[in-house]
Amino acid sequence: MQDKPLLAFDADDTLWHNESFFALTEEAFTQLLAPYAEPGALRERLTRTERRNLGIFGYGVKGFTLSMIETAIDVTDGTVPAMVLQALLDLGKEMMAHPVTLLDGVGDVLEQLATRFPLMLITKGDLFHQENKVARSGLADLFTAVEIVSEKDTMSYSRLLARHGVAPERLVMVGNSLRSDVLPILDIGGWGVHIPYPLTWDHEQAPEPLGHPRYVRLSGIRDVPMWVEAQFPSGSIVG
Amino acid sequence: MQDKPLLAFDADDTLWHNESFFALTEEAFTQLLAPYAEPGALRERLTRTERRNLGIFGYGVKGFTLSMIETAIDVTDGTVPAMVLQALLDLGKEMMAHPVTLLDGVGDVLEQLATRFPLMLITKGDLFHQENKVARSGLADLFTAVEIVSEKDTMSYSRLLARHGVAPERLVMVGNSLRSDVLPILDIGGWGVHIPYPLTWDHEQAPEPLGHPRYVRLSGIRDVPMWVEAQFPSGSIVG
Repeated sequence: MQDKPLLAFDADDTLWHNESFFALTEEAFTQLLAPYAEPGALRERLTRTERRNLGIFGYGVKGFTLSMIETAIDVTDGTVPAMVLQALLDLGKEMMAHPVTLLDGVGDVLEQLATRFPLMLITKGDLFHQENKVARSGLADLFTAVEIVSEKDTMSYSRLLARHGVAPERLVMVGNSLRSDVLPILDIGGWGVHIPYPLTWDHEQAPEPLGHPRYVRLSGIRDVPMWVEAQFPSGSIVG
Repeated sequence: MQDKPLLAFDADDTLWHNESFFALTEEAFTQLLAPYAEPGALRERLTRTERRNLGIFGYGVKGFTLSMIETAIDVTDGTVPAMVLQALLDLGKEMMAHPVTLLDGVGDVLEQLATRFPLMLITKGDLFHQENKVARSGLADLFTAVEIVSEKDTMSYSRLLARHGVAPERLVMVGNSLRSDVLPILDIGGWGVHIPYPLTWDHEQAPEPLGHPRYVRLSGIRDVPMWVEAQFPSGSIVG
């Protein structure tokens, strides 16, 4: 057990859809504000507001909703009708309450892996919303630990590993974001498995660490078991 | 060490001021909307919206800010100028960025206790905001663990104790909320130390468990060391 790898999974856009709901909401945002500006300009203003507010609000739907409202006021020079702002608020509530839709193969693969390896879920963002999503995903029992952090960087990962007494070389992190799930893990000595999602939030864009000995890109979660078995035959570390 | 009590502290309104900032913001809210309704009616509507949204947004300033915006739209039948809503949004941002003001005696007492007992901080609410406040409080190094949970109930406390391998009878929880810091702790077999704060959010009101053998009310954090020494002479459990 002690030398088995610990398989850690990102949640949003790795286990279940997330960015696509943001994209749908952004689409609704541009439609609601169509009388005031072009969709492209609206999207750009929203992204700018969002980035500026990230340091104040942190990640998550509630901060995003506040940023939509702020952008709507800003882009209309304060002439936006309050009912449009209420509609944006309702979009935010819908996102918070949206059913969790697992990505293809996730349930099967995690159930299979859980019989051989300890699994951990590591997600960033809003504690309340992420806990709700984990609960509604039906996957909670497959994980030996669920960790929700406010930022995924070398410091937060190192702290997490120390707390669980896991050596970095035992950690395999599977996720869709190079910036959050792969690069900091490689930096601290762990294994980074990248499974791209069709949509990537600008903020998560990062260069691919091609050729790194502990990095691999897989095309879907169904490829994880075979890669893990090949990399860690008989369940032990050989890297 | 093993039989020493673990002293856990709530954060908001136990270590630093919090509810008073909400009260100031609520005051500004009633002033901004004074042309539309009486302060009392405004406060009541806001409280109702807040409670209704608690299950969607969870605790914290971002959800509160969204509830202020929703109430303002609601109470004015959608006629509120967008600039008033921007002002509410700015109030929310100010709350997020507000300096952390420690309650009287907190620094001294925690420094003193930290030399004798393991200290833990257990707070509920927004992960990003609470982490920020802990960091800015200057107290982080005094705690062996900082735990931020989405709800403080018997389940979340039990999970936390299990994770840290702490028996309930070793846990002393110090906080201002009977509902969140005291009653669930007594339920699971721990010690509840209540230090009232001058203001209590309606949502946190609960009956005082007078006469409970593991409950005590102290008038301030400066009374904690003497109570702990009396209750656990030579640092061990005798309850």
